[in-house]
Order: sequence, then structure tokens, then C-alpha cells
Amino acid sequence: MGSIQKEALIRCHKEILPYIHRTPILTSKTINRMSKSDIHFKCENFQKGGAYKMRGATNAVLQLTDVQKERGVVTHSSGNFAQALSLAAKNIGIDAFIVMPSTAPQVKKDAVAEYGGTIIECEPTLSAREAAAQKIERETGATFIHPSNDLNVITGQGTAAMELLEALPDLNFIIAPVGGGGLIAGTSLAAHYFGNACKVIGGEPFEVDDAYRSLKSGRIESNETTDTIADGLKTQLGDKSFPIMQQYVDRIIRVTEDEIVNAMRLIWERMKIVVEPSSAVALAAVLSDKDRFAGKKVGIIISGGNVDLKRLPF
Amino acid sequence: MGSIQKEALIRCHKEILPYIHRTPILTSKTINRMSKSDIHFKCENFQKGGAYKMRGATNAVLQLTDVQKERGVVTHSSGNFAQALSLAAKNIGIDAFIVMPSTAPQVKKDAVAEYGGTIIECEPTLSAREAAAQKIERETGATFIHPSNDLNVITGQGTAAMELLEALPDLNFIIAPVGGGGLIAGTSLAAHYFGNACKVIGGEPFEVDDAYRSLKSGRIESNETTDTIADGLKTQLGDKSFPIMQQYVDRIIRVTEDEIVNAMRLIWERMKIVVEPSSAVALAAVLSDKDRFAGKKVGIIISGGNVDLKRLPF
Repeated sequence: MGSIQKEALIRCHKEILPYIHRTPILTSKTINRMSKSDIHFKCENFQKGGAYKMRGATNAVLQLTDVQKERGVVTHSSGNFAQALSLAAKNIGIDAFIVMPSTAPQVKKDAVAEYGGTIIECEPTLSAREAAAQKIERETGATFIHPSNDLNVITGQGTAAMELLEALPDLNFIIAPVGGGGLIAGTSLAAHYFGNACKVIGGEPFEVDDAYRSLKSGRIESNETTDTIADGLKTQLGDKSFPIMQQYVDRIIRVTEDEIVNAMRLIWERMKIVVEPSSAVALAAVLSDKDRFAGKKVGIIISGGNVDLKRLPF
Repeated sequence: MGSIQKEALIRCHKEILPYIHRTPILTSKTINRMSKSDIHFKCENFQKGGAYKMRGATNAVLQLTDVQKERGVVTHSSGNFAQALSLAAKNIGIDAFIVMPSTAPQVKKDAVAEYGGTIIECEPTLSAREAAAQKIERETGATFIHPSNDLNVITGQGTAAMELLEALPDLNFIIAPVGGGGLIAGTSLAAHYFGNACKVIGGEPFEVDDAYRSLKSGRIESNETTDTIADGLKTQLGDKSFPIMQQYVDRIIRVTEDEIVNAMRLIWERMKIVVEPSSAVALAAVLSDKDRFAGKKVGIIISGGNVDLKRLPF
């Protein structure tokens, strides 16, 4: 692994701050009573672009050389990273090429276009996405930025936990959802450098438990099916995020689809905030393993709030 | 009208503060761009009990004499005031009797019960509700607290606008939804005493435009039908709220059901917060009359966030 130093996180946070929100930290007495723990929610659903992805995307574009900036950036994503990279690129005045499957919802394409990204459509397969992105790289000279498996991106994602620990230095645990591993890897580094024996735990749906299996087997595992409501967590770990997780993540707690929907409903009804299913996975993990967290001070990263209101699970 | 003095608002705010949240004020660049104005949302959806009603209910119970406190309070409400009065009464250790129509959703009954209120069910008509409340008054000696047409309640509701003006003394407008008139009356008093030529405007659905017609005719008008999604705004004005509105409310802006749903969707999607349809009426009013608010600094009272997630209009 290319190791990420404490100084890199500090520098990153300072550099991206003009472009991101320092998001609020909320609490709920009802949820504390139910969980028997003291939970502090870091609300990245209020982040620019509606998700923590803006942190990593901003750090990635800020690290480009002037020559690279002239040629722009390219990624493949149909989710929050597509919007985040478009907005981050726009903020510093460079081009962003976003490869999206032709089947992506119009609302997501509209959001990318609104943030100034150039959409390139492709067939809805991973190989088609990768081929389309490589073609853009060759033709434009744009720099490829992976949504999660990129050290600059991982560093940026770690700044959410940095802010959480700045406000609450004595957290016993931080829980984050696990998809491609960018958020949990960055979070675990932040807890290592800035926490006080703070353990980092990942929440993951049983339906896509590749990270759980990967930490058991010691190699990056895949999902044969991805039948989960947590659409942001279907991707697998990468060779940058996985070694960091192996070193610094305490464990993965798996949750059922019902547990995810119940946790999501609880957050919407009690906290009055709009969060994605992926975000609810972290709370679901705490509620499914109450004894572990009883009496403890727990941080939860609410990863984002970009949901299709026409397709809610309630 | 029994006039409410500036000192009463100041005293009220000081007394209720230990029992309420000083709710946050949020902004949205996207909504500012769309409205061409500078909007500040006072988020009473984050208030205890999920709505501004907690302010007025708390002030009402705090004004009781010791003898009255021993006998508790009674109200009839199937909405947010039922929860608010239950919680306010529980906070100071007195009984709350809540008359609710037998047809009220179980989720609302559960919320009242959770906050310690005693539910008395009645037929779903106004006369049955009033008769049931009067019976409780006679039998228990409990003090009747009206959800909106009560000077202590109106004073309490005005504290949301007080906090808004404390943070933003130079607001040109404050917009609040109009139902029974308690919120808008309190808001208009707060703007009169603490604003700097700050105009207060009510937002009201065309489908229940009794307040609009009442201000035109000079007497309290009724609604023949109440076919609106804004279920908190179906009630009519009272002899306490109406004279204050006549004196201090600049005007009422009426909005269509589509405008309400669109404004609600905008708040959920862009601000990532859960708000009731009634709350969206105020933003809908601003968006339907953009020229009036262009370039102005506008406060909007987000009245509450208690929605049935199973029955969303999206």
C-alpha cells in the first residue's frame, strides 16, 4: 500500500475546506434510548453534492498538476461520485468526463449535467465502463480518478471522521458503511491518527458481504449477486483500500435488508433527515449488535442523502 | 383581543428555553437561485415533538397556577398539538388528556401515548371533539388548552420568529403557513416587536383559503371543503388569532396543491430534511410570487416534520 501519513490528512482537510461543508453532527434521544449507547451522527447527507464523496473528489482534483488540470478528469460512476467529481472539477475550473451506463436514472444524469460534467454513455457492464473511460483517457489525456480505490480519494474521505473526532475526541467507535472501501479506509486512518483508542467498524449488507469475507480470507472477494437496497454498497474493495482496512478496521458487522429499511425509517422519522439506504446500514449495524455498543460513545458516518423519492422502501 | 406585549414574548422565550430546542436555520444555494431571493429556513421540524407546537404548548402549561397544575390539561387535536401538549405536560409532571377522533392514525395515537398523554377517543366530528373535551374538563377539572386560539399558545409560537430575528435582524419578510392562525399571529407579533420593518406573510392552500377570505371580509370565514394535502392547515381562525393577524399580517399568498408538493419535493431533495406538506406551503408561496421577494432577505418557518412515510405524495 502507498501509506497515507497523518500530515497528508491534515493538509488535505485544510485544502478542501473552502470547497466543502463542515457538516453538522446530530443526536437523537430516542435512538440513544433504543440502542443504549450515545450516538453522534456526522451528517454528510448535508455535504455539497449530497454525499461525503465531495471530500475525496475535491482532494483528487486539487492534487493534479497544472498540465493535468488542463486536460481534465474522467471517472466511471452512476452514483454519488459522478456528481461529486463534476462539482469538484467545476469548482476549480477544469473538465470532468463522466462515464455512465445508458440505463442510469435520468435524475442522476441531470444532476451530473447540472454540475457541469460531460456524460459519456456506455453499456451497463463493468468492462464497458472501464473501456469507455480508457478511451476518454487516450483521446483527451484526462486523468482517471477512481471513485474509491485512489489514495487521494481515500485521504479526502477520511476528513469526515477527522471533523467528528475534532468535535468528539473520546469516541469509542466510529461506524461507516462499506462499499468500495474508500470511506471506511479513510475513516480508519483518521481514527488511527486522531482518535483515542477509537475502533472503526464497517456496516455491510449480508447481500453484498464481500468486505466481510475479504477480511476473513485475506484477499479481495467479489459478490456474485448484489441484491440490496443499499445501492451505494454494491462495489468491491480495491488494492488501495483493502490493505488499509486490513490494518486499521476492527471488524465488519453484516445486516439484513429489513434491518437496513428499519434503521432508515428510524432516521427519517425521528431525526427528520433524508438519508440513503447505504447510510442507514451503519445504524443498522449498531442496532443489530447492541451489547457491543452499550454505554459507549459512538460516531456514525451518514454517508449521503441522494435518494429517488419515487422509489422509497416504506 | 387581549394584547400581547413585547415583554410577554421575552419572558415566555426565557421560560420555555429549558424545554425546547433552539432550532437551526438552514439555507440552500439551489433554492436561492431558483427563487432569486435569500431564504433562511427556521427548522422547527427539528423541534421536540417534531413541530413548533412544542413552544406554545410549553408556554401554556407553564402559565398554569399550582391548583390548575394538579388537575392537568385537556385538548382536542389529532395532530402535532396532541403530541406537543402531552410532552409539555410530562416535562413539568402534570396530566394531559388528549381527545382524538377514533379514526386518527395509530401512529399518532402511539406518539401521544409515548409522550405520556391519556387518550380519549371520540367520533370524528368537531362537535363530538368539543363535547368530549368539555366532559373531561367537568369530570377532572383539567384546564382546556386550545391548539391555536389561546394567547399563551400564540405567544409561545412567536418565539420561533424571535430566534430567527435574533440571528437575522434585517429580514425583509417572514413567511409562515396559516392553519388555525396561532403560528402566523405569534410570528407577526415577533416581527412587529423585534423586526426592522419586517413584513409577515401567510402561505395558505387555495383549497382551504379561509384566512385569505377572512382578511378580505373582516370576519372569520370557514372552509366548506378541506381537500388539501396540507393536513395541518384545515382548521379555521379563532377570535384570539384573527385580530392579531388583521393588525400585523401583511397578506396571505395562496398556492395550489401541485405547488405544495413541488416545494415539498424541493426541500426534501435539495435540503435533505423531512418536512410536512404544511411546511412546504410557505416556500410554495415564495416561489409562486417571485417578483415580490426578488433580492430580498426572507425567513421561512418550517413548521414541522411529522409525516406518514407510507403516504408520501411523490
